[in-house]
Amino acid sequence: MDAVISVADTTERLARRLEATAVERDRSGGHAAAERVAIRDSGLLGLTIPRSAGGLGADWPTFYGVVRQLAQADSALAHVFAFHHLQIATVLLYGSEAQQRELLPRSQSEGWFWGNALNPLDTRLVATVVTGGWQLDGQKSYASGSVGSDRLVVSAVAPRSNLEMETQHPPAGRLILHLDTRAPGVTVREDWDSFGQRQTDSGTVLFERVFVPQRDLLQGPDTPPTPRATLRTLVSQLIMANLYLGLAQAAFEAGRRHTLEKSRPWLSGNAASLADEPLVQHRYGELWLQLRPAQLVTDAAAQQLQAALDAGDALTAAQRGELAVEVAEAKVLAHRAAMAISSDVFELAGASATSQRLALDRFWRNARVHTLHDPVDLKQRDIGRFRLDGRPTEPSPYA
Amino acid sequence: MDAVISVADTTERLARRLEATAVERDRSGGHAAAERVAIRDSGLLGLTIPRSAGGLGADWPTFYGVVRQLAQADSALAHVFAFHHLQIATVLLYGSEAQQRELLPRSQSEGWFWGNALNPLDTRLVATVVTGGWQLDGQKSYASGSVGSDRLVVSAVAPRSNLEMETQHPPAGRLILHLDTRAPGVTVREDWDSFGQRQTDSGTVLFERVFVPQRDLLQGPDTPPTPRATLRTLVSQLIMANLYLGLAQAAFEAGRRHTLEKSRPWLSGNAASLADEPLVQHRYGELWLQLRPAQLVTDAAAQQLQAALDAGDALTAAQRGELAVEVAEAKVLAHRAAMAISSDVFELAGASATSQRLALDRFWRNARVHTLHDPVDLKQRDIGRFRLDGRPTEPSPYA
Amino acid sequence: MDAVISVADTTERLARRLEATAVERDRSGGHAAAERVAIRDSGLLGLTIPRSAGGLGADWPTFYGVVRQLAQADSALAHVFAFHHLQIATVLLYGSEAQQRELLPRSQSEGWFWGNALNPLDTRLVATVVTGGWQLDGQKSYASGSVGSDRLVVSAVAPRSNLEMETQHPPAGRLILHLDTRAPGVTVREDWDSFGQRQTDSGTVLFERVFVPQRDLLQGPDTPPTPRATLRTLVSQLIMANLYLGLAQAAFEAGRRHTLEKSRPWLSGNAASLADEPLVQHRYGELWLQLRPAQLVTDAAAQQLQAALDAGDALTAAQRGELAVEVAEAKVLAHRAAMAISSDVFELAGASATSQRLALDRFWRNARVHTLHDPVDLKQRDIGRFRLDGRPTEPSPYA
Amino acid sequence: MDAVISVADTTERLARRLEATAVERDRSGGHAAAERVAIRDSGLLGLTIPRSAGGLGADWPTFYGVVRQLAQADSALAHVFAFHHLQIATVLLYGSEAQQRELLPRSQSEGWFWGNALNPLDTRLVATVVTGGWQLDGQKSYASGSVGSDRLVVSAVAPRSNLEMETQHPPAGRLILHLDTRAPGVTVREDWDSFGQRQTDSGTVLFERVFVPQRDLLQGPDTPPTPRATLRTLVSQLIMANLYLGLAQAAFEAGRRHTLEKSRPWLSGNAASLADEPLVQHRYGELWLQLRPAQLVTDAAAQQLQAALDAGDALTAAQRGELAVEVAEAKVLAHRAAMAISSDVFELAGASATSQRLALDRFWRNARVHTLHDPVDLKQRDIGRFRLDGRPTEPSPYA
Repeated sequence: MDAVISVADTTERLARRLEATAVERDRSGGHAAAERVAIRDSGLLGLTIPRSAGGLGADWPTFYGVVRQLAQADSALAHVFAFHHLQIATVLLYGSEAQQRELLPRSQSEGWFWGNALNPLDTRLVATVVTGGWQLDGQKSYASGSVGSDRLVVSAVAPRSNLEMETQHPPAGRLILHLDTRAPGVTVREDWDSFGQRQTDSGTVLFERVFVPQRDLLQGPDTPPTPRATLRTLVSQLIMANLYLGLAQAAFEAGRRHTLEKSRPWLSGNAASLADEPLVQHRYGELWLQLRPAQLVTDAAAQQLQAALDAGDALTAAQRGELAVEVAEAKVLAHRAAMAISSDVFELAGASATSQRLALDRFWRNARVHTLHDPVDLKQRDIGRFRLDGRPTEPSPYA
Repeated sequence: MDAVISVADTTERLARRLEATAVERDRSGGHAAAERVAIRDSGLLGLTIPRSAGGLGADWPTFYGVVRQLAQADSALAHVFAFHHLQIATVLLYGSEAQQRELLPRSQSEGWFWGNALNPLDTRLVATVVTGGWQLDGQKSYASGSVGSDRLVVSAVAPRSNLEMETQHPPAGRLILHLDTRAPGVTVREDWDSFGQRQTDSGTVLFERVFVPQRDLLQGPDTPPTPRATLRTLVSQLIMANLYLGLAQAAFEAGRRHTLEKSRPWLSGNAASLADEPLVQHRYGELWLQLRPAQLVTDAAAQQLQAALDAGDALTAAQRGELAVEVAEAKVLAHRAAMAISSDVFELAGASATSQRLALDRFWRNARVHTLHDPVDLKQRDIGRFRLDGRPTEPSPYA
Repeated sequence: MDAVISVADTTERLARRLEATAVERDRSGGHAAAERVAIRDSGLLGLTIPRSAGGLGADWPTFYGVVRQLAQADSALAHVFAFHHLQIATVLLYGSEAQQRELLPRSQSEGWFWGNALNPLDTRLVATVVTGGWQLDGQKSYASGSVGSDRLVVSAVAPRSNLEMETQHPPAGRLILHLDTRAPGVTVREDWDSFGQRQTDSGTVLFERVFVPQRDLLQGPDTPPTPRATLRTLVSQLIMANLYLGLAQAAFEAGRRHTLEKSRPWLSGNAASLADEPLVQHRYGELWLQLRPAQLVTDAAAQQLQAALDAGDALTAAQRGELAVEVAEAKVLAHRAAMAISSDVFELAGASATSQRLALDRFWRNARVHTLHDPVDLKQRDIGRFRLDGRPTEPSPYA
Repeated sequence: MDAVISVADTTERLARRLEATAVERDRSGGHAAAERVAIRDSGLLGLTIPRSAGGLGADWPTFYGVVRQLAQADSALAHVFAFHHLQIATVLLYGSEAQQRELLPRSQSEGWFWGNALNPLDTRLVATVVTGGWQLDGQKSYASGSVGSDRLVVSAVAPRSNLEMETQHPPAGRLILHLDTRAPGVTVREDWDSFGQRQTDSGTVLFERVFVPQRDLLQGPDTPPTPRATLRTLVSQLIMANLYLGLAQAAFEAGRRHTLEKSRPWLSGNAASLADEPLVQHRYGELWLQLRPAQLVTDAAAQQLQAALDAGDALTAAQRGELAVEVAEAKVLAHRAAMAISSDVFELAGASATSQRLALDRFWRNARVHTLHDPVDLKQRDIGRFRLDGRPTEPSPYA
């Protein structure tokens, strides 16, 4: 109970801290070094690290609540924060007991900030078997959270010829490892230039003859992941949903305040104040009816995800398949709520809300950029396919 | 636990019984005498009657689940069934302890089927103070469940001059009473002729010098109802939401089966079977994303309503106000889901689904008629107004 | 000019005549013998027959205007009427000069009512080469306008083995012929049972050893149709668009009148009359904004179709391809306008508009059934594909 | 014919010129001096100036075509350009023959660039009667095109007490005048800081004891404008519609190209290339179906506006009222098309389209800012009101 209250208070303070400079940093872009320090100082890097490893051991619904709240203040830093925890989840889901025993206490005590270099669409990073481990050469783009991170989770391709030395399986395999961001041969190129989510510390990670010992291999190239291990994707997808929701809530709230405080009644309108204008009330109702269902569906999915994580290796492929659809439902609804509200709310707040000083367009820009992570139409197709004939979505980097 | 299981089984059996003849009765319209007997025989008329009065004492979320399931099979009879329970709720919310002690055990033991004559838009029914009670003269239209009922809850207007004999308050008051449908002077005219919800046993109730003793007055003309008493409207509105949801679910399921079993692939389409057509999957996803949120929001509202009922007289106007908005959210979403799915699903099931033998148009007709109960746009306005500046909706016959 | 005026007056009179009994005939279904007589007596069966053949020689935009107006009154009979003219167009587009010289004057002077048996999804009708022509055996379902027709346009499949006697081409061919509905061996089974468009005189046409002389072959099994000939499909698709528009207009108008004349102001609404309620005005605006664009796009497509018909054999495949997309645009917009307006307008007209006496649900039922002719989502895909990279839609029975 | 061709070529060249630096100038904001020179050099400032005054004398549909094309390249400069012509229209509609004879040839020969200071919501500019004319004191905000202009059309309020000297009419009156932007006492403060339409040269115009002679009064405070004069608002509103359409077209085209040239097929998608993905084609169809109707409705409104202008003083209030609704229809549809396409097209073009180098977000930012000119929901209400019971919209600064 204390821990919960403390998380709430801490999150609130951190959110206010990030919000204070969010407009300015949206303008400048770049690496948010000071804000990373503030996050680390808050203690929330340990939110999902088990108590046994010294962390706060919060459950995942609590984690998602924190992500959503931070995203209202600053969706870029909230993304960096959430992806740190996604890598913690990766250690929990893919790592052996030994790896967990080693990594999690160190992560907690040394205050590691984790990033990723996992972009499944970029297959240029190659892992070669070498004595005692693997050598990485190549690069990974769109590695969010990599700039300024302490530790990276990385995926690489092991070419066929090379794998044959180790296994009999013919196809090229994908393996997942972790390593120190400051390891020799690793370079992070800060090259993110999108018009939104400007401070996600995304970049391209270059690897030149980088050695990773075998004990830092989280998943080998041949082992098909268990249903439990594939929950990682769903942890990730639900992060997206909560980031989108945070953006939707922030845009709704900013618009609402502008309508109440700054906007004049409509010339030729139906009421003497904008808050009394039936057409304005009606459209706020419309926007809210995008937000509220997305919240409930996302919260329900977080509960289901927690249950699936609790089931551990007993989790069946069918259960995982249904959960994937529920997470997809949350993501699609949150995506749509974020896009609709961040754009439409201006019609209720009026022209004065478009001042660059307020930078209220950042909600749309952030949502627009972030919701392109993977195609929403495929999610909707997957949902419909499952609800039509029960066919589950195949586990994939995005589902 | 046993009771819960028994309710589920009984509901399932009753639903199958109603479904078996639903198409035929949709065609014929009129009074469903045999189905009323089946409902009475099921024991479910006692669902919301407290255990202390001999009933099943189910909570309201359970009740709504039953309504929704019956509505999938036959939304007209589900309405009749639900409005019976709405009158039970009226006795619980408006009735004195003495009235409850008298009415509820009798209702249970004598198997009363309750109906209503409460249409707030029809003000033609006048109550005059007479010795020992009230005399009713006039009529009430759109009295659903009145045809074939045993007991009626009735609202009437007491004119000013008349009220002055009893009270000092100037304005004409609205009072609520109950009476035996077969009381002298009461006539029920079966005049419902809408193209949907054909068997809601709705009619016009005519009153000619009908005497109602004072002890059967549930609410006098002067007492403004407590927040708790005004929950009656929300019990009613949430019945609507669950009826709409039942219709939406039934239409989705009927369409889904037709797509899978009866429909040919599209000429010039993108797949060899309709279930594999990406555009069909995508649109089933779209329809599901109307249904699923409506379900979750409606279920959450039922939990909130139960909490409000449990709070009893401690319920504040502010709490009641917020609940009213949550119920409105459920109703709007369920309304839209029912309309969209019952119409659009044909585009996925194809022309052969329009055969009159299947009567799949009944879902749209039923939803179309029933969703006109009160204007959805006012609900959306009320939601937006509350979310904009916190102004609660005034309790009214519809909110 | 006289002719135009006369067409307008005649159409108006015929529309009023059909409208007078439309509700009743929607209820009864079946064959509308008397209304067919009224159509024939109006002289409008000659509307698209060239003046040289004794007809009115109207252009196609005029024809579509007539279809739209009749559809407002009675969309089933308007369909029968329009499909008569589609067969006239078939003779004009597929028939040789000799065939046109023979058929069109006879059609005019003998007052033929044409129907079709062309359903491309039903391939059960087989044409065998026999001495002097073809023998037809099998059946064609969904043959609208066949019941009560004088003349039929029929498509049949000529199996490979049989065709080899005549040609070298390997695949089974599709041929188009015309014949007297009363020819020996032809039986029309009145089996249409959809919940809408109840009097389209649709049925299954059975053929038992029906002989068709070679001179009545409109298109042989081997000749790929010219771009000009494939305009037939577009003539047909644009008929659909205009039928949908007629339904949309009729529903809008009926709802509008009910709102103005019959509906009470909303309890807890924003105005003292429904016509003054801003939310009602706003939603009528929304519905109109579905109708108006559909009208303009459909009218523009009719002009383009006329231009393509005027181009004759000079019409290129590219021109035909672009026209097909423009017609598709009209059809999708008209489809959506009809569905949205026929369903949503009830929310503005209120519960009293659902009386069976008015049968205002017929607009939705008619639109719902008729818009399933071919999948709207494929049309939208074709439009997007063309606008994305210029790929024209392949001519097909539906495009 | 030559003139038309020349306008087309000139517009095309000017559009290319503006497009070349549009991204860079969107970033920098501020006054686009060089681009104004390019516009003046193109000769298109004379587009709507009558031939008799030395201008090109183009009709208004031609003018709107030019606006739309320029808006595709640079919607801010297109606005500046269009508002120049709106002031020309003001002279034509409000000016006396003498004023037109004086102003139009000078405007043409001296290459005047007109701006406005007419914001009807800002009533701080006061006109006092002085000897020989008027004295202006106060300010006007949101004066687009004022920065860098040569000539201004200005509205001011003449207070009651002051007016009584001149007239008997009680209410404060609004008058319209024109003056040299460089007149003594006029200061233009460049204070536009919206996140879109960054170079509209909008500012606040300050007036300190500015004298305007009586002959430069375009409309006095007492004369209610004729139906013809109120066409000015419709000229203005239709400019908006065409600017929005230009934005919609530009966003569609940019997205389309990115999909075809830059985007990879979807992982787990339904096709090997994005252009073959049915869900992508389907959604491009959806976007196109927003664009195309808006184009046709806007073009039709331009034709109607031209007809109304041609009618001159014979124009009735009823005709003006219907035209106002048609213009509103165009504006609403163009508004929606611009907002939907500029936001949604990213879902089809993918994440790489969000690079700041491309600045494809400018279409949304520009459309978002510009479409807030006046509330779209009031337009929709006005449309619905007219189509419901024929009540015309009262002429106003926005309708």
